[in-house]
Amino acid sequence: MNCLSPSILSADFANLGEQVRMLDEAGAQYVHIDVMDGMFVPSISFGMPVIKSIRECSDRIFDVHLMIEEPGRYIDDLAEVGADLITVHAEACKHLDRTIEAIKEKGLLAGVALNPATPLSAIEWILPKVDMVLIMSVNPGFGGQKLIPYTVEKVRALKKMIDEKGLKIDIEVDGGVNLENVTEVMDAGANIIVAGSAVFKGDISENVERFLDVLKE
Amino acid sequence: MNCLSPSILSADFANLGEQVRMLDEAGAQYVHIDVMDGMFVPSISFGMPVIKSIRECSDRIFDVHLMIEEPGRYIDDLAEVGADLITVHAEACKHLDRTIEAIKEKGLLAGVALNPATPLSAIEWILPKVDMVLIMSVNPGFGGQKLIPYTVEKVRALKKMIDEKGLKIDIEVDGGVNLENVTEVMDAGANIIVAGSAVFKGDISENVERFLDVLKE
Amino acid sequence: MNCLSPSILSADFANLGEQVRMLDEAGAQYVHIDVMDGMFVPSISFGMPVIKSIRECSDRIFDVHLMIEEPGRYIDDLAEVGADLITVHAEACKHLDRTIEAIKEKGLLAGVALNPATPLSAIEWILPKVDMVLIMSVNPGFGGQKLIPYTVEKVRALKKMIDEKGLKIDIEVDGGVNLENVTEVMDAGANIIVAGSAVFKGDISENVERFLDVLKE
Amino acid sequence: MNCLSPSILSADFANLGEQVRMLDEAGAQYVHIDVMDGMFVPSISFGMPVIKSIRECSDRIFDVHLMIEEPGRYIDDLAEVGADLITVHAEACKHLDRTIEAIKEKGLLAGVALNPATPLSAIEWILPKVDMVLIMSVNPGFGGQKLIPYTVEKVRALKKMIDEKGLKIDIEVDGGVNLENVTEVMDAGANIIVAGSAVFKGDISENVERFLDVLKE
Amino acid sequence: MNCLSPSILSADFANLGEQVRMLDEAGAQYVHIDVMDGMFVPSISFGMPVIKSIRECSDRIFDVHLMIEEPGRYIDDLAEVGADLITVHAEACKHLDRTIEAIKEKGLLAGVALNPATPLSAIEWILPKVDMVLIMSVNPGFGGQKLIPYTVEKVRALKKMIDEKGLKIDIEVDGGVNLENVTEVMDAGANIIVAGSAVFKGDISENVERFLDVLKE
Amino acid sequence: MNCLSPSILSADFANLGEQVRMLDEAGAQYVHIDVMDGMFVPSISFGMPVIKSIRECSDRIFDVHLMIEEPGRYIDDLAEVGADLITVHAEACKHLDRTIEAIKEKGLLAGVALNPATPLSAIEWILPKVDMVLIMSVNPGFGGQKLIPYTVEKVRALKKMIDEKGLKIDIEVDGGVNLENVTEVMDAGANIIVAGSAVFKGDISENVERFLDVLKE
Repeated sequence: MNCLSPSILSADFANLGEQVRMLDEAGAQYVHIDVMDGMFVPSISFGMPVIKSIRECSDRIFDVHLMIEEPGRYIDDLAEVGADLITVHAEACKHLDRTIEAIKEKGLLAGVALNPATPLSAIEWILPKVDMVLIMSVNPGFGGQKLIPYTVEKVRALKKMIDEKGLKIDIEVDGGVNLENVTEVMDAGANIIVAGSAVFKGDISENVERFLDVLKE
Repeated sequence: MNCLSPSILSADFANLGEQVRMLDEAGAQYVHIDVMDGMFVPSISFGMPVIKSIRECSDRIFDVHLMIEEPGRYIDDLAEVGADLITVHAEACKHLDRTIEAIKEKGLLAGVALNPATPLSAIEWILPKVDMVLIMSVNPGFGGQKLIPYTVEKVRALKKMIDEKGLKIDIEVDGGVNLENVTEVMDAGANIIVAGSAVFKGDISENVERFLDVLKE
Repeated sequence: MNCLSPSILSADFANLGEQVRMLDEAGAQYVHIDVMDGMFVPSISFGMPVIKSIRECSDRIFDVHLMIEEPGRYIDDLAEVGADLITVHAEACKHLDRTIEAIKEKGLLAGVALNPATPLSAIEWILPKVDMVLIMSVNPGFGGQKLIPYTVEKVRALKKMIDEKGLKIDIEVDGGVNLENVTEVMDAGANIIVAGSAVFKGDISENVERFLDVLKE
Repeated sequence: MNCLSPSILSADFANLGEQVRMLDEAGAQYVHIDVMDGMFVPSISFGMPVIKSIRECSDRIFDVHLMIEEPGRYIDDLAEVGADLITVHAEACKHLDRTIEAIKEKGLLAGVALNPATPLSAIEWILPKVDMVLIMSVNPGFGGQKLIPYTVEKVRALKKMIDEKGLKIDIEVDGGVNLENVTEVMDAGANIIVAGSAVFKGDISENVERFLDVLKE
Repeated sequence: MNCLSPSILSADFANLGEQVRMLDEAGAQYVHIDVMDGMFVPSISFGMPVIKSIRECSDRIFDVHLMIEEPGRYIDDLAEVGADLITVHAEACKHLDRTIEAIKEKGLLAGVALNPATPLSAIEWILPKVDMVLIMSVNPGFGGQKLIPYTVEKVRALKKMIDEKGLKIDIEVDGGVNLENVTEVMDAGANIIVAGSAVFKGDISENVERFLDVLKE
Repeated sequence: MNCLSPSILSADFANLGEQVRMLDEAGAQYVHIDVMDGMFVPSISFGMPVIKSIRECSDRIFDVHLMIEEPGRYIDDLAEVGADLITVHAEACKHLDRTIEAIKEKGLLAGVALNPATPLSAIEWILPKVDMVLIMSVNPGFGGQKLIPYTVEKVRALKKMIDEKGLKIDIEVDGGVNLENVTEVMDAGANIIVAGSAVFKGDISENVERFLDVLKE
């Protein structure tokens, strides 16, 4: 099944609870939560206290994307505030296997993210252990960027790699996805779509529904 | 005049806009905004997108307390999202004078913060240039801690230092201040009081009013 | 020839000299010396003064495994205290070729280690220059962990890579190896076996002998 | 066309302007400018003020090779002092795509450099975006080193990779190239040759001419 | 009472248990345990597994001196392996008060150490909370150095500072202390003496006894 | 005697040798050499190869000011290329006493520099060991800035501190000094004056002579 994971990085933080509820009611299966530390990426977004506050607004999968250095430091805190799926960047982990294991020991889903230029070889050994791979289709750190075309090809290569190993792993794509290009991204092999401004600009419920219509096809 | 600066670190982030409006309407003169990067302090709180979203909810002084490494990197971004007063930690700045200058060049108020154990000598030369000194009365990183008693003595020593130099500089105290100990803290010389859980636990408006009553005395 | 390299990380440091002598007398060909700095891995084990003290207890190959950041800094010191073989982590070296060269210029054997998730491509160019590749079969940092199954496959892939290039390079495996799984590890291509608790729990001499029996087969 | 890029790291900095003019007049098409920060490599060479001073001495392509940590920090400054081509190390960039984009947004040529041991997979996705790949044939940080033989094979592999993707990208080789081995390096696929001591030892004009003669063949 | 804290950095690590027992039997009241990480100081000494092994050899006070970056990371581990007193460097702690509190929460004695050039103002606020101040009389990182004369003056200044505040805090001196200069150091105000080579060179028991004789006077 | 130390950061690097000779012939007693690494300060200036090239152009005192992280790493290299006086920043040295000792062991003069906001207490213990204290009168990193007024007061406080201890130590001032304000700076206690643009803008020889005239008074 294809799923939508709206990124609250583009939400109105004055009314975050309400907006999260709208995502939920409109049928989005995930809530994409972009934690940025200003070190791994050049911006600080939000962290644990914000996640904790919105946990009661939705039972959807809290899909926490850690754009932070050495994310292993915060697995416990994130589990406690309600993360369901934690994705860490391969570029930020000296000990990627240990970090993935730490997420799984908490009983959570584990994902690994790759920056646009990072080769797929970075995850060739850890692949069977993860529940999801997140292909960054923009350089992480900001909302509102345009999808980098070669990353669609990278999704296709990853899909092939997963299929050849006989694995069942979700592929999420994050950055610049909108109603115009989402079909191309899914055709390449992605099944979880992150959308930020494309969901939060205008009517949230309508935007979610339009995405879900395309995703169902 | 004594002022209250409620720390939104203890707010409900699902309803942040509403809560900020309540602070404003109840008469709090500042909004204390604790930015944490998970590097200078062991937690990530929130950053630019959150501040931007709540800027329209209040015209009060946005009192941004940067608990981050090398805060000079983010002065421009913070000015853009609506900071009025930016406070940086002396412990986090290799070039404290440059960072203070960068804040002032943006036309903003500039503050410098000191961890509990940091000596006042750390600010002896920069003192005439800043608008405010923030004395941490707990170790920064988390809400809900107890005030460290010796920091009251430190406020007194700072007040004396400011008076002896014939300066007019605000003294803010952050950490564990409540209605029981706020008078002691003001008597020591503080005139801007940060309060987190003491404001956000229970009825926000009532809590603010009680604080303001004590602060007026 | 297959060799045993008992890891003194599991030794009794109150009687280290005696235990090293026991390893030697029981026939272990290497002494595996795990240097940890608490930065590359989350524990500090021991370093130069400990190695220096036990050098006189055995003439076996001192197989120093550096789980430290930028190991190039300490090659000279380690040569001086008696290292015979120095292994550095590819993940810890910005300039891997330079570090390997520095080891060889001291007249020592040079090894390169890979964390479980690190791809073999990390060493494809340096391979002909090294004497040994160390495949971590657990996440480095602690003794007493269980072998990660996919690392056996990685040993097999490395063996194939070495053979295809027509090279003669030792393959060492470190982490969770015991009498039950050592044959599987050797069958995959490893010829130097690190064993910690499997050697030091119980009778050291007997344990070494049992391992050597299996290794001879 | 094959080109020469003499590295001024080996120049006489007391007469740098004159020496740069000599390179230009003798026909060298590029000026190779090695910026080192003492962090990415163990030496500090020179930076912006030096480049600015020599910009008026030649209209040749200023080929700036950044051996520095997180080079994205200095793209603006380098554009301003007159860089034409900026090359960054893949090992020094957490966000390689963003850094390459930042160079191109300035209207400059963009290159990516690889240390001897770094696999070509590090650039497989970014390759179509860059104008040049720089294969380090010594460990960066110092002039006067000997070319590492396996890097010639790496040039050949890169050339094949570029051709297979149907791309047109320059290959530059830096380190230990001289009149004896330059043909071998070009035969492997390189078309921009960096030469330091081989140009600056003796008569600069004659050395440049000899190189250009070989490059023309 | 004046006490001796022999530093096992100068011990024979092949016979560490026996040597620790000798210190104990000869009457040394403390065992000084120098943990070095190769980052805060330019050497790696030893850490948790070594301390754990020797804990059963003596009931004396295990006086653990952490010459490591951000020592707060390892308080739990050190408590578990048997530390009685943990001393951290003021230069290594961004949040000195928090680190001291973390030690005390474990029920252990807490000390703070100062490098030779570090001013006493670094500890002026934390002083009432610590059980001991360690004045480094050499630059930390190696055994066998000569005492830096001005540090005796610093001990005197610290003693005065402690007395003026009406506190009871131990003063330990570490580096280059021997039978010739120990009286001068005690006269300045120190009451816990670290001695390394002066204890371990020659007959350990005799050396301890000679020190204790002088300390009793 | 008052001395002039023209900073070559403002020189024309195309003709550096000639300009250094002009400084020498015009009578400047020192050559101020600003080494910047882009980490301690936000610019990379130049390093060892540049210093080496100009060493033969003058016998004046090469006054090397290291605006770099952990300057102890480069003392040997700087001694080799011809430094006479090496000044390190107190803010950049974890082990300031060791770094000063390392400079003196090379037979060179040793200086310590303080950023504008850094308290004098940072050097209170090391003061008797150094030959010079450098008071930064601008934030280091760039030429052409305006002198920060409060730093003149800091020079005066340092002069008093040196006199009270009965020491003979040079005081150098660096940043924004020109013919208009140099007398005020000397009156405060400085005896070595760094001047950059004030020397290199216009006729170098004349500028040096004018400074020397004022310095003689």
